[in-house]
Amino acid sequence: MKVCSDHGVATAARKNPLYEEVASEFRRKIDLGVLRVGEKLPSVRALRNGRRVSTATVMEAYLRLERDGYIRVRDRSGFYVVQPPTRAIPQPSTARAVTPALPVGISALVAEVLQQGGSQKLVPLGVSTVDPSLLPMPRLNRAFRRVLARWPLHSARYTELSGAPALRRQIARRALALGNAIDAEEVIVTAGGLDALNLALRAVASPGDVVAVESPTYFGVLQALEAVGLRAIEVPTDPRSGIDLGLLERTLRSQRVKAVLAMTTCHNPLGTVMSDQAKKDLVAVTARYGIPIVEDGAYSDLAFDERARRPAKAFDQKGLVVYCGSFSKVLAPGLRLGWIEAGRFRDRIRAFKGVTSGMTSALPQLAVAELLATRYYDRHIKRLRLQVAEQTRLYAQVLRDVLPPGTRMTSPAGGNLLWVQLPGVDGTAVYRRLMQQGVGVFPGEIFSLRGKHRSFLRISCGALWSPAIERGIELLGRVCREI
Amino acid sequence: MKVCSDHGVATAARKNPLYEEVASEFRRKIDLGVLRVGEKLPSVRALRNGRRVSTATVMEAYLRLERDGYIRVRDRSGFYVVQPPTRAIPQPSTARAVTPALPVGISALVAEVLQQGGSQKLVPLGVSTVDPSLLPMPRLNRAFRRVLARWPLHSARYTELSGAPALRRQIARRALALGNAIDAEEVIVTAGGLDALNLALRAVASPGDVVAVESPTYFGVLQALEAVGLRAIEVPTDPRSGIDLGLLERTLRSQRVKAVLAMTTCHNPLGTVMSDQAKKDLVAVTARYGIPIVEDGAYSDLAFDERARRPAKAFDQKGLVVYCGSFSKVLAPGLRLGWIEAGRFRDRIRAFKGVTSGMTSALPQLAVAELLATRYYDRHIKRLRLQVAEQTRLYAQVLRDVLPPGTRMTSPAGGNLLWVQLPGVDGTAVYRRLMQQGVGVFPGEIFSLRGKHRSFLRISCGALWSPAIERGIELLGRVCREI
Repeated sequence: MKVCSDHGVATAARKNPLYEEVASEFRRKIDLGVLRVGEKLPSVRALRNGRRVSTATVMEAYLRLERDGYIRVRDRSGFYVVQPPTRAIPQPSTARAVTPALPVGISALVAEVLQQGGSQKLVPLGVSTVDPSLLPMPRLNRAFRRVLARWPLHSARYTELSGAPALRRQIARRALALGNAIDAEEVIVTAGGLDALNLALRAVASPGDVVAVESPTYFGVLQALEAVGLRAIEVPTDPRSGIDLGLLERTLRSQRVKAVLAMTTCHNPLGTVMSDQAKKDLVAVTARYGIPIVEDGAYSDLAFDERARRPAKAFDQKGLVVYCGSFSKVLAPGLRLGWIEAGRFRDRIRAFKGVTSGMTSALPQLAVAELLATRYYDRHIKRLRLQVAEQTRLYAQVLRDVLPPGTRMTSPAGGNLLWVQLPGVDGTAVYRRLMQQGVGVFPGEIFSLRGKHRSFLRISCGALWSPAIERGIELLGRVCREI
Repeated sequence: MKVCSDHGVATAARKNPLYEEVASEFRRKIDLGVLRVGEKLPSVRALRNGRRVSTATVMEAYLRLERDGYIRVRDRSGFYVVQPPTRAIPQPSTARAVTPALPVGISALVAEVLQQGGSQKLVPLGVSTVDPSLLPMPRLNRAFRRVLARWPLHSARYTELSGAPALRRQIARRALALGNAIDAEEVIVTAGGLDALNLALRAVASPGDVVAVESPTYFGVLQALEAVGLRAIEVPTDPRSGIDLGLLERTLRSQRVKAVLAMTTCHNPLGTVMSDQAKKDLVAVTARYGIPIVEDGAYSDLAFDERARRPAKAFDQKGLVVYCGSFSKVLAPGLRLGWIEAGRFRDRIRAFKGVTSGMTSALPQLAVAELLATRYYDRHIKRLRLQVAEQTRLYAQVLRDVLPPGTRMTSPAGGNLLWVQLPGVDGTAVYRRLMQQGVGVFPGEIFSLRGKHRSFLRISCGALWSPAIERGIELLGRVCREI
């Protein structure tokens, strides 16, 4: 079998001029850190002889790299790598109109995507988790062992419905550090982020009610809406600034909306981080109509600028913001631990928890409480944030080279996700074709109702860069160009 | 403060003749094993002097004990303890009529009972769990440590929605041993028994549909019905034989019933174990109408006769029985692990799991799979079954002595629960009064709709016998007599 990464380049070469191929190869080497800032590139002659290409091709490639800001001529002695700029690729387009309220029914495709796209045999560009090696599993396991030694009867009784007091205290402490002054009594531990969303939605709305959501929005939000039997109004959401507050206000004024669901910090799939002012405005607009916000903060610890992590809930004066958090993205997805900062809906949420998901597994709660109490945890989050930022930038740069001209892509301010708009290409067809070839991506269709966003893909940049990832991205580019 | 148990006896004495008080005290000593079979009772003279009562009182007490089969005169040398018979206390009465289909709305009182009655500061006659010392926590913890050592990345990825394959295999293996030939593919792991019931009900019925349930039935069943928005028809259920199959058939014939929910083995709260024939008949009756059964087997490992554990699902030919199991009663309630043997509803249940409770916490699944693979686990279940049987009998004997005349009580064939029918006494008032005094019991009202079973109490016999339990039961008797 041929080495696939060569194979990918060879295929690309058929469509791009030769100098572009050479430039692209160097770009990737620089992005991947194979060539580092300050290092010298091969001389024109050496490259010409090594690659058997013309001097003109090499010169054109180097000039291209220089124009793109990757290299610079220094002292007439040669070409050196410089800090590459974050290059501009157009942002995806945003819908202009609010949709009418629709019943939600997306679970068939989502179920297919989650069942097949979740397979661990796939190149992991679909499921949104960060690489296991970036998670603090050794520390978490140490915490588990400590709990087993200290509380050998950890699970021998039914536990508190709202969650282990130790964990709730830690969650409240961390919320406080973000300017969100809640106490542990307001915290309700859940079996992961999806459970939190389900409980929050059940508390703020009843079957048949209308909830305004961002467009696009995380398919788990749509699943939760469907499970509760709610209808959704999709409000256009800009990848840079977030939900369109003007359109939202007009919607709240003209229609009976029971709640707004928003991911203000590290939107899934857009990667948007709303500014503090925008968050404040969002809270003000909804509070004017007495409408609660369910704020999904599953990714918020991954905001690249850590000062931007303050949730909309921090600006909530009336207890109308129900914040849903999760440990899945920054600690361990298989723990199934999330939480709700419930505001004035605490008793209703508790009641729904009592009759649906019930108590939450005791041991994971105690271990996470143990870990959260350490200074290590904060260091971990800081480090993870930088790693994810770095990795997401790298994926974006490589993707830009392989995707067909006319592609648009987000430039996220947080999280490990890229939202890619293909030029007239059906994302669901790309998803299906890639699945057959062992590469998992998520089709844009599942991020909205009635097949909107069909020309989109969501790419997870959570996995560490590897030859397999590189092959997967090459293949993605090829499939997009072929379809 | 006075010692409460003296206090209880003194109070009782005001209402009962003196000889009854003396007899009751000896009965309890024998029941508790303070006086053992073959041991001699104090002589009439010794007792008369010690207690400062008349010879007549002592003689009357001893004659009463002899009449009750507790002691026997031997060789004219004195009174000796003999094996006490299981004495007859009348079974609770059973309703005769099927109720009309009612929407379910019981969660307010249930929430109160669970929140307050679940406090660990109470004497634990309410929440149904077995004593932590009877659970195999050391072995379970060893299994946890082994998993941590062997799979340090246990929770670093999202896991399979249906549950860890190792656990599903173990569950299928155990089902097979009970004559229920399923394979691991049919098993769906859940976050406890309540989650299993919720998912099963969502799969077999839609909001507004009617489900036939036993009367009384476990309040968790009613909570799940309420959460899904179902209506319930309550079918009279006999403490000895189970749900009335004649009335059930008539109901299925005359009304649109979407499913039947039954606890065939160790009914909560009745302790009924239906015979194999009755289980077979139940399956046949429902299959005739093409109606699925949701079989709740949370307590089935606690059938006192282990051969009686075979579920109705073992007689199911058509995949219409959805069996819900739980590890809460026999292994560890705080793990929050249960499962569904899903029959033909597997895909629907998986889909609902995907959009509501989501994946189940990974580490507890792996540890339980580890434990279930050992021979120790089967020995544990055997031992636990005997201990619970012994304990439940003991509680029943002591209760019989303190409860007012006219009380009726079940004589369970499995499980750790007693269902007590008070003579014209409001069980909810008893529950409230006892709560104030630090004793937890569950009011009968939460086991049915519209306040039926208000003269009932459910008593959990899961806690090891102790002075605190004894005081709690004394107090229960006093409150029942006073109200």
